Amino acid sequence: MLTPREFRALHRPGAPFLLPNAWDLASARWLHAAGHRAIGTTSLGIAVVAGKRDGAGAIAAESLALARAAATHDISLTVDLEAGFSDDPDEVGRFAAELAAIGCLGVNVEDSTEDGELHDPDLATAKVAAISAAAPGLYLNARTDSFWVTGGGDAGDRFDDAVTRAERYLAAGASGIFVPGVLDPQTIAALSGAIEAPLNVLVQPELRLAELAELGVARVSTGSLLFRSALGSVSALTEALIGGGRPSDVLPTAPSYAAVAGLPLVEP
Amino acid sequence: MLTPREFRALHRPGAPFLLPNAWDLASARWLHAAGHRAIGTTSLGIAVVAGKRDGAGAIAAESLALARAAATHDISLTVDLEAGFSDDPDEVGRFAAELAAIGCLGVNVEDSTEDGELHDPDLATAKVAAISAAAPGLYLNARTDSFWVTGGGDAGDRFDDAVTRAERYLAAGASGIFVPGVLDPQTIAALSGAIEAPLNVLVQPELRLAELAELGVARVSTGSLLFRSALGSVSALTEALIGGGRPSDVLPTAPSYAAVAGLPLVEP
Repeated sequence: MLTPREFRALHRPGAPFLLPNAWDLASARWLHAAGHRAIGTTSLGIAVVAGKRDGAGAIAAESLALARAAATHDISLTVDLEAGFSDDPDEVGRFAAELAAIGCLGVNVEDSTEDGELHDPDLATAKVAAISAAAPGLYLNARTDSFWVTGGGDAGDRFDDAVTRAERYLAAGASGIFVPGVLDPQTIAALSGAIEAPLNVLVQPELRLAELAELGVARVSTGSLLFRSALGSVSALTEALIGGGRPSDVLPTAPSYAAVAGLPLVEP
Repeated sequence: MLTPREFRALHRPGAPFLLPNAWDLASARWLHAAGHRAIGTTSLGIAVVAGKRDGAGAIAAESLALARAAATHDISLTVDLEAGFSDDPDEVGRFAAELAAIGCLGVNVEDSTEDGELHDPDLATAKVAAISAAAPGLYLNARTDSFWVTGGGDAGDRFDDAVTRAERYLAAGASGIFVPGVLDPQTIAALSGAIEAPLNVLVQPELRLAELAELGVARVSTGSLLFRSALGSVSALTEALIGGGRPSDVLPTAPSYAAVAGLPLVEP
């Protein structure tokens, strides 16, 4: 498990690390065994496993359970809190402190609702401040959804809003800023120039990691991509088999039974 | 949800259906939404999610929880019991009855241990009889591991043992027989000819579903394949990104956020 200092040090502007996002202990163990030094969570994945709605503040218990299980397996985890699972900053702070006590290294907290509305920046800032006060050791990745929500105005408005919000979150104690969405290279460069903290973006369909490095990014998250890819591989495979494919032709990437069953176990 | 009669009727020798095996509610929901009429479970997947050993009788609670969740979502499920999660036939019967009461349509029960030893056929037969007595409505797929264990003798010995065991399990109330392992076409044809009940085999690397149909198979299971494929897609993707790949080139099969977040929900 990384120390908080080591996790913080992974965030180097211009030399980003790839943070893969797990949704359960299996994906976390698999990614950990593959050598990823730190692993995030995807609220979409956790919600779909639980049969709940994503982004609706409904998966606090499941996120906590995954954090506990990851810690038992010595997996360095940073947990997506959606919008904090509450609009009471004190509750958000208490939850973050609980995660820190378990051994989590970081959290993400976002500033929009399930319905795609940006929260009032005062409320979002209060949540950041509460987390920072309650769990000062966590890497606090404040997510601003100015480019993520559908109703955010033109590109200039979105940029100005993202930077203004980022400044407030940093002043309230955020460690870094996460701007999700598909962004053009100019916007990413402008964001990393304007925001005085490590910038986190999602994997961008048309940009390699080396290109994101040149644009000043410090951390690249897979978001829900790995979870969606896992589901996609499942249906692609069954469709190929039902469509008459020969299994040996349609199964390129499945690891062996032994490789999966042999993942390290923690004896109770 | 299928009725027990409809599930039984899916098992047609010479016209097999593909039974995909889920490991959690997300994979079960995704496969159900893709149109699979019935879904199995994979003990490997459930065990790895739980941080437990596969085939060791350790995942009864997790299998029950998945069965409950699937029933809530109207998903027709048949549950892998490994070797019954107990060597007390009465306990095995009680567990099967609990699954039937939840709405499960079937179970698999196997006759080997985690260490790859075949159980005494008397014990395995007693478990089949107990399930049949306690939960007569379940489709009872009795698995014989004569071809699965490493120490099973030559091909002729394995064949004779599999058929002898199959006959005993059927006499004790089994609905069908599952013979896992990679089998050659001659062996599959001989098994389906010798066993007077629907024959279930795993997806065979070199045989299309149409070829398995010609060999007399009634049901084709994916076993742990979809779970392993899901994990494989995750590591293949992160390796491709870290290796310098352009995401749009290395992500062929991921469904959209909306397709996954929009899976049907059951309101509590």
